[in-house]
Amino acid sequence: GILERLDDGEVVIGDGSFLITLEKRGYVKVGLWTPEAVVEHPDAVRQLHMEFLRAGSNVMQTFTFSASEDNMESKWEAVNAEACDLAREVADKGDALVAGGICQTSVYKQHKDEGRIKKLFRQQLEVFARKNVDFLIAEYFEHVEEAVWAVEVLKELGKPVAVTMCIGPEGDMHDVTPGECAVKLGKAGANIIGVNCRFGPWTSLRTIKLMKEGLGAEGLKAHLMIQSLGFHTPDCVKGGFVDLPEYPFALEPRVATRWDIQKYAREAYNLGVRYIGGCCGFEPYHIRAIAEELAPERGFLPPASEKHDSWGSGLNMHTKPWIRARARREYWENLLPASGRPFCPSLSKPDI
Amino acid sequence: GILERLDDGEVVIGDGSFLITLEKRGYVKVGLWTPEAVVEHPDAVRQLHMEFLRAGSNVMQTFTFSASEDNMESKWEAVNAEACDLAREVADKGDALVAGGICQTSVYKQHKDEGRIKKLFRQQLEVFARKNVDFLIAEYFEHVEEAVWAVEVLKELGKPVAVTMCIGPEGDMHDVTPGECAVKLGKAGANIIGVNCRFGPWTSLRTIKLMKEGLGAEGLKAHLMIQSLGFHTPDCVKGGFVDLPEYPFALEPRVATRWDIQKYAREAYNLGVRYIGGCCGFEPYHIRAIAEELAPERGFLPPASEKHDSWGSGLNMHTKPWIRARARREYWENLLPASGRPFCPSLSKPDI
Amino acid sequence: GILERLDDGEVVIGDGSFLITLEKRGYVKVGLWTPEAVVEHPDAVRQLHMEFLRAGSNVMQTFTFSASEDNMESKWEAVNAEACDLAREVADKGDALVAGGICQTSVYKQHKDEGRIKKLFRQQLEVFARKNVDFLIAEYFEHVEEAVWAVEVLKELGKPVAVTMCIGPEGDMHDVTPGECAVKLGKAGANIIGVNCRFGPWTSLRTIKLMKEGLGAEGLKAHLMIQSLGFHTPDCVKGGFVDLPEYPFALEPRVATRWDIQKYAREAYNLGVRYIGGCCGFEPYHIRAIAEELAPERGFLPPASEKHDSWGSGLNMHTKPWIRARARREYWENLLPASGRPFCPSLSKPDI
Amino acid sequence: GILERLDDGEVVIGDGSFLITLEKRGYVKVGLWTPEAVVEHPDAVRQLHMEFLRAGSNVMQTFTFSASEDNMESKWEAVNAEACDLAREVADKGDALVAGGICQTSVYKQHKDEGRIKKLFRQQLEVFARKNVDFLIAEYFEHVEEAVWAVEVLKELGKPVAVTMCIGPEGDMHDVTPGECAVKLGKAGANIIGVNCRFGPWTSLRTIKLMKEGLGAEGLKAHLMIQSLGFHTPDCVKGGFVDLPEYPFALEPRVATRWDIQKYAREAYNLGVRYIGGCCGFEPYHIRAIAEELAPERGFLPPASEKHDSWGSGLNMHTKPWIRARARREYWENLLPASGRPFCPSLSKPDI
Repeated sequence: GILERLDDGEVVIGDGSFLITLEKRGYVKVGLWTPEAVVEHPDAVRQLHMEFLRAGSNVMQTFTFSASEDNMESKWEAVNAEACDLAREVADKGDALVAGGICQTSVYKQHKDEGRIKKLFRQQLEVFARKNVDFLIAEYFEHVEEAVWAVEVLKELGKPVAVTMCIGPEGDMHDVTPGECAVKLGKAGANIIGVNCRFGPWTSLRTIKLMKEGLGAEGLKAHLMIQSLGFHTPDCVKGGFVDLPEYPFALEPRVATRWDIQKYAREAYNLGVRYIGGCCGFEPYHIRAIAEELAPERGFLPPASEKHDSWGSGLNMHTKPWIRARARREYWENLLPASGRPFCPSLSKPDI
Repeated sequence: GILERLDDGEVVIGDGSFLITLEKRGYVKVGLWTPEAVVEHPDAVRQLHMEFLRAGSNVMQTFTFSASEDNMESKWEAVNAEACDLAREVADKGDALVAGGICQTSVYKQHKDEGRIKKLFRQQLEVFARKNVDFLIAEYFEHVEEAVWAVEVLKELGKPVAVTMCIGPEGDMHDVTPGECAVKLGKAGANIIGVNCRFGPWTSLRTIKLMKEGLGAEGLKAHLMIQSLGFHTPDCVKGGFVDLPEYPFALEPRVATRWDIQKYAREAYNLGVRYIGGCCGFEPYHIRAIAEELAPERGFLPPASEKHDSWGSGLNMHTKPWIRARARREYWENLLPASGRPFCPSLSKPDI
Repeated sequence: GILERLDDGEVVIGDGSFLITLEKRGYVKVGLWTPEAVVEHPDAVRQLHMEFLRAGSNVMQTFTFSASEDNMESKWEAVNAEACDLAREVADKGDALVAGGICQTSVYKQHKDEGRIKKLFRQQLEVFARKNVDFLIAEYFEHVEEAVWAVEVLKELGKPVAVTMCIGPEGDMHDVTPGECAVKLGKAGANIIGVNCRFGPWTSLRTIKLMKEGLGAEGLKAHLMIQSLGFHTPDCVKGGFVDLPEYPFALEPRVATRWDIQKYAREAYNLGVRYIGGCCGFEPYHIRAIAEELAPERGFLPPASEKHDSWGSGLNMHTKPWIRARARREYWENLLPASGRPFCPSLSKPDI
Repeated sequence: GILERLDDGEVVIGDGSFLITLEKRGYVKVGLWTPEAVVEHPDAVRQLHMEFLRAGSNVMQTFTFSASEDNMESKWEAVNAEACDLAREVADKGDALVAGGICQTSVYKQHKDEGRIKKLFRQQLEVFARKNVDFLIAEYFEHVEEAVWAVEVLKELGKPVAVTMCIGPEGDMHDVTPGECAVKLGKAGANIIGVNCRFGPWTSLRTIKLMKEGLGAEGLKAHLMIQSLGFHTPDCVKGGFVDLPEYPFALEPRVATRWDIQKYAREAYNLGVRYIGGCCGFEPYHIRAIAEELAPERGFLPPASEKHDSWGSGLNMHTKPWIRARARREYWENLLPASGRPFCPSLSKPDI
């Protein structure tokens, strides 16, 4: 189980981007960002699961983001059920657990109707129970109050519960600090606490550090989890990347390199985080970068590393000597990659 | 057939990136860049074909780049055969032709041994003949002499032949200008002539313009074809993107947006190019952008547009008004996207 | 007197950069940054005073920065005396007061020897008394304790005392916040309190806002003064621009435009600051920009505006229509000027 | 005389920017860009001459740019006479010659009236004759035909004639190439030929190289002269910096560092250019950088170097070790200075 692994000090590698990645592959629509693809194009979803598994993911999270009744009407149930089957099918081909996933509702912003919201969570949970997922993830909460409700519902099943908020160092939308958020979630019974989405690697690392300090100050114990964006977002303010003018159709120049992600994985590890994955923008090779960076600690490489020589050493066979000169760690570690866009700025001012 | 379509003035949409895209998905190894994935992981290759088909590609090119005996030893034959089957299987699910593809050999640089090189080409051609592909593409030639040899071999089959060089406006590696290259290829019997790879959209458009002028000056008739990189490369010199310090592991900030590709498609169309696709860095959504830009001329949208509202109009349903304000053409057409990398330059000096 | 002007709500415009500007003109040496030019090349110093007067400065500050005995040995006295004469000579040609200026010593960092430091301040003060300057400025203090000592000494003369620290929003080198610094300086008797140097316009505005809040919270009354760098420094940390890798010989790309300075002046005015000038990097045309921005409030333009049409309107006579199109406020107000340096980053990481 | 120096292989250092520099000091007005300051504020003009002399200039060019009757009406004569006196007064304080300067007229674009234009040139020449300048410079010509007319008139006096065009590698406004321009000017009798203004250092070096090749191909002998902008302008097209959106009020981020200018001086010297100076944007410290770079060849440093330790070595006395670490050539030679402007692009698209 997930807790046994984390309790033993293992590094657990999460998966990466489903919505943004499948949007680029042609299966998800911007706007509602719902996972109809699970039933419409299961092959495409299965393939992406397979790629993450190959890259080293230890968790196949059901592709059930926003798959609650408020967003998907009657389709919600089939999507949740099928998503569990797909995740299980792939997980069984490797060393991975299945996590049932829920996220914030569309309801909370209008009415903080605890009863209705908990009912929505419970509907998905019932499918997860039936499909016997291994553990549960509540993710992408911008208000800690709603995240606590999610934890409370998920706890009902008796399986381990992870919870991540989509907040930055400035805290949740009601100005609850990351430290306070973590404490509330820990007190609600979450076993694994952290952040996902909305902010890039370096910002998310700062947030998780604040969460850790908050938990420590209260003497609470919980495992830490980080699943940042695969985009660089130093210019984000409180609302995160959705407020950047480039969201969601011009984020390309911000995509992290594999080397950026190796630094992120190392930094997260050094901070004591042991559940490390990614969110929007995290492609399979980014997940592989986590697995490769932490291979010394874990003692093994993921399957996809059979197609990846570490730190570019595969360039050694190139016929041009200046390309062979790139086949070393120092080169890629220190490279400051150009954008090829001299008419563009390097930072944006968030809209608000 | 391809020529009937082009002769009728139809726009034919090519496919996109296989090597670079499958490298990121975990199935191709940097270095030799060979397509073993065809036999090792056919599901992954089939899925990528499917995505391009959905995005609007009218051509399923066999994933046989570098799959000649000099690069793959005894594996070459199985890879070529299986690649044809995969391409045909997917092509038959939509409106697409199958093109057998060859590229420059590893031999030419050491010995301009016409006999040996033509034999390598002919080996692949025999498989394509057996599998009854619809037409042939010789691509990624940096020396026009070798490209002419390829055309000469491919012509033996009696099917239409397309040929593209990986050159920029400065011409081939022996300083033959793009115009002269096009003329030589036309005289060798190529039906479709153009460029692929090594240079970004704007540079490739300048090259194809020079090719067109060269053909025109000689009174030669040939259809034009463009399959540029999906990366911005204004800083490239003659050798193209492989000489950029970011090649191949830090090209992320250079990836084109879908809006960049719409401009590229329009510009290519206005230049008279009617076979428009992409090369390294072209993801399925880039191909869809070509299909969407040229939908008025073609009269239909590709299947994947069911998951894509034109010019961001799907953002209209967003709850934040400043995100809804992005749901219009002028916004995306004029956006200058930031890199989120303030410590990086905007251009690089190519190594050489 | 200075206080009458400020008490009446007048805007007082300070002067600009002496050390950095005269270094570029060939009269000041980087390193000790001492003002020997006063005696060696009085014409050059007089000319710069004249330019600031013409640009609208209401204060001729004696060029006595670092002109204390610890830095200049026996030369200190002649420099202080001559600097007063030069300032007075020019001030009398227009509407300006003479301010005697001192700054932090080289002693404080080694030994917080209050007696010795106060003696150094008092030496300069005695010259200022003899030369009958109109008021006094203690500037460029990175420790509030030493600034308080300076104020205590300067108060002995019975003339108005202004004091500015070279700190940013993070406070002084002993972590005293800007608000606390301002309170300590106010309690020591300073009549005018603020910041100068080390940080660019936007950062200095944030610091002065914190000072204002600190004074307000304590119910202290003091006039506010700002004299920021003429360089953009968003990447500075606590130590300010001296820690940037570009300091001091490659700051050119950071120089503010006149339009940047108009925004700075307006912002300062809106914050309630009424003594507005500049420090390193502020050339005469930057001072003129302050005077032009605040001309509506002040009711007059400075002499140098006879050579400057507002918001570029002088371009109206250009023969090229696209240059005439630049003759308007919206154009310059919104222009994002390019660096012409595509191989350079936009931000630096400070050394420390 | 100038020719003796150049014939002996000496390096002659020109002066720098008058119009742009005095505009920033408050004495010149954008638009007509005429030098009334000569009579209105002679102290300011004298001071700038002094600074260039101190920086190492061997030529005091009369500040008579645009001081022809078509631009200045009746004021032209007094300005030309006084400008000669100022230049002579300063030249006599050091090792400098006086050059009388003329430039393209406002007439040529409307009517190519050779008689009227030559008369305008001759008027200024008569003052230069009366004042006995040492040699003559015709500069800032965008049409070689008018430049030839200028040379023809200036030759009448029997003194050495230098001529520079404000063109880039694409040639003059009638598409005469740089090589052809140089040949026409050489045949007209110019002793010194080159470029000034409108393009930055690297572009001007490319132009002068083309001029040299043109002269060489014709077997013509002439000394070469370069006086580029002090701004980086890689994005300029044919019309030069006036077409950049930043011209003339937001060029700050493009200003060259002293280290850039040392490279420019070295490159010019290596190309065989022996008259090396600057145009708009060249401040006194830029001229000093030329003199310092070429001090090994010339055997001496300019007076202003008493205030400048080479390659930043004066930082050795700084108290912060990381600033002392900047006191070396490699540091400044390789630094890529940041703009501090993350919301700005690095290149602009010229207006036209």
